Amino acid sequence: MNIPESDDLREVCTTSSDLVCGRLLNVFRDEVRLPNGRLSQREYIRHPGAVMVVPLLGAGDALRVVLEYQFRYPIGHALIEFPAGKLDPGEPSLACAQRELREETGYTASYWARAGQLHPTVAYSTESIDIWFARDLHSGTQSLDAGEFLQVFTAAPGELFAACAAGEVTDAKTLIGVLWLQNLLSGAWQLDWQQL
Amino acid sequence: MNIPESDDLREVCTTSSDLVCGRLLNVFRDEVRLPNGRLSQREYIRHPGAVMVVPLLGAGDALRVVLEYQFRYPIGHALIEFPAGKLDPGEPSLACAQRELREETGYTASYWARAGQLHPTVAYSTESIDIWFARDLHSGTQSLDAGEFLQVFTAAPGELFAACAAGEVTDAKTLIGVLWLQNLLSGAWQLDWQQL
Repeated sequence: MNIPESDDLREVCTTSSDLVCGRLLNVFRDEVRLPNGRLSQREYIRHPGAVMVVPLLGAGDALRVVLEYQFRYPIGHALIEFPAGKLDPGEPSLACAQRELREETGYTASYWARAGQLHPTVAYSTESIDIWFARDLHSGTQSLDAGEFLQVFTAAPGELFAACAAGEVTDAKTLIGVLWLQNLLSGAWQLDWQQL
Repeated sequence: MNIPESDDLREVCTTSSDLVCGRLLNVFRDEVRLPNGRLSQREYIRHPGAVMVVPLLGAGDALRVVLEYQFRYPIGHALIEFPAGKLDPGEPSLACAQRELREETGYTASYWARAGQLHPTVAYSTESIDIWFARDLHSGTQSLDAGEFLQVFTAAPGELFAACAAGEVTDAKTLIGVLWLQNLLSGAWQLDWQQL
C-alpha cells in the first residue's frame, strides 16, 4: 500500500495528569502539541495489555473452536467470545495466554502460535491485545477468579462464521479471531507453531 | 451453535456513580450484584456510539478501498484505519456514516449497506460501532474538525489483506471491516444495499 508520508501527523505530549485511578481504570488527560503547533487535550485509559486465545479442538473435518459466553456489564448482556484476559504485571504474553486458557476453560495446549496484535480502542485506550492460536488441547479443570462467571462451549468453524454474518458475534477481538481463523483454514495466512 | 443457558450470568446494578466526566471520557463505577448474590464493582466508560465506513472505490478488478492514516495518541503512532467517528447527540447511524465519510475523505456515496455492529471493548466501555459499506463514490472536499489531522489513501483489497496478515493493520474496527470485505468479495456474506 502506498501510505502517504506521515511526519506531519505526530502529536507530542507537553504535560500529563491522571484524571482518575480507579480499581480497574486509570484515566489520564494529556496536553499535546498538534501538528499545526496548537495545543489540545487527549483523554485516554492506560491499560496493561491483554491476550486472546483461539483454541482449536480436534482437526480436519472434526475441528471445533472453544468459545465462552460471558455477561458483559457495559454491554448489558452476555456475549460470545474467545478466551481472553489482561496481563499480570511483568507477565509475558504467551504465559498469560496459557494461564487464561487454563483458568477460563480448563484446557492446556501442546502447540501455540502468535497470529498478531490488535488495538481495540485507538482513540481512548493504550490497550493492545496479542492474538494467540492454540492446538492439541487437553481438557482439565477451570479455575475462575472470584466474581468471574462464564460458560464454555464449542462450535464448528462454519457455525461460528454463520453467527458472525448474522450479527450474533459483536465482540471485536472475537471477530478478529474469526478473520484469522478463516484465513488460516483457507490457507491464505500462515501461523508459525511452536511446541511447548 | 449450542450456547449454554445464560440465565445465571446476569449482573444487576445496585448503585451507579460517575468517577469522572472529562471533556472526552465519562467514567462510571457501578456496584453490581453478581450471579452468586455477592456485590462487586464495575468501572466503565459511557460512550455515545460510533460508526465505521468501508468505502468501495470502483468495482471488479479495479476495486480499491479508501483508508486513512491517522496518528493515535494513546498508541503513539499513526494507524491504518477505515473512516469512522462518533455519533452526534440524536444523530442516526446512517447520517453519521455519511457525514464522517464526507468530512474525513471528501467522498459521498450513492449506495449504502449496514453490515453489522461491533463492540470494541466489552470489559470497560459501552461503545458500539455500526459497520457501514458505501459504494458508487463521488469525490469532493474534505472538511476536518479543528485539531483533526489525517491522510487519505486507497488500496487494492489484496494489498490490504496482505497488510493485515503482516501485522501492519492493528486497529480493531478496521480488521473487522476486512473480515466483512473478504466475505463480501468471496460471496460468502451478503449486503442489503440501499440507494440514497
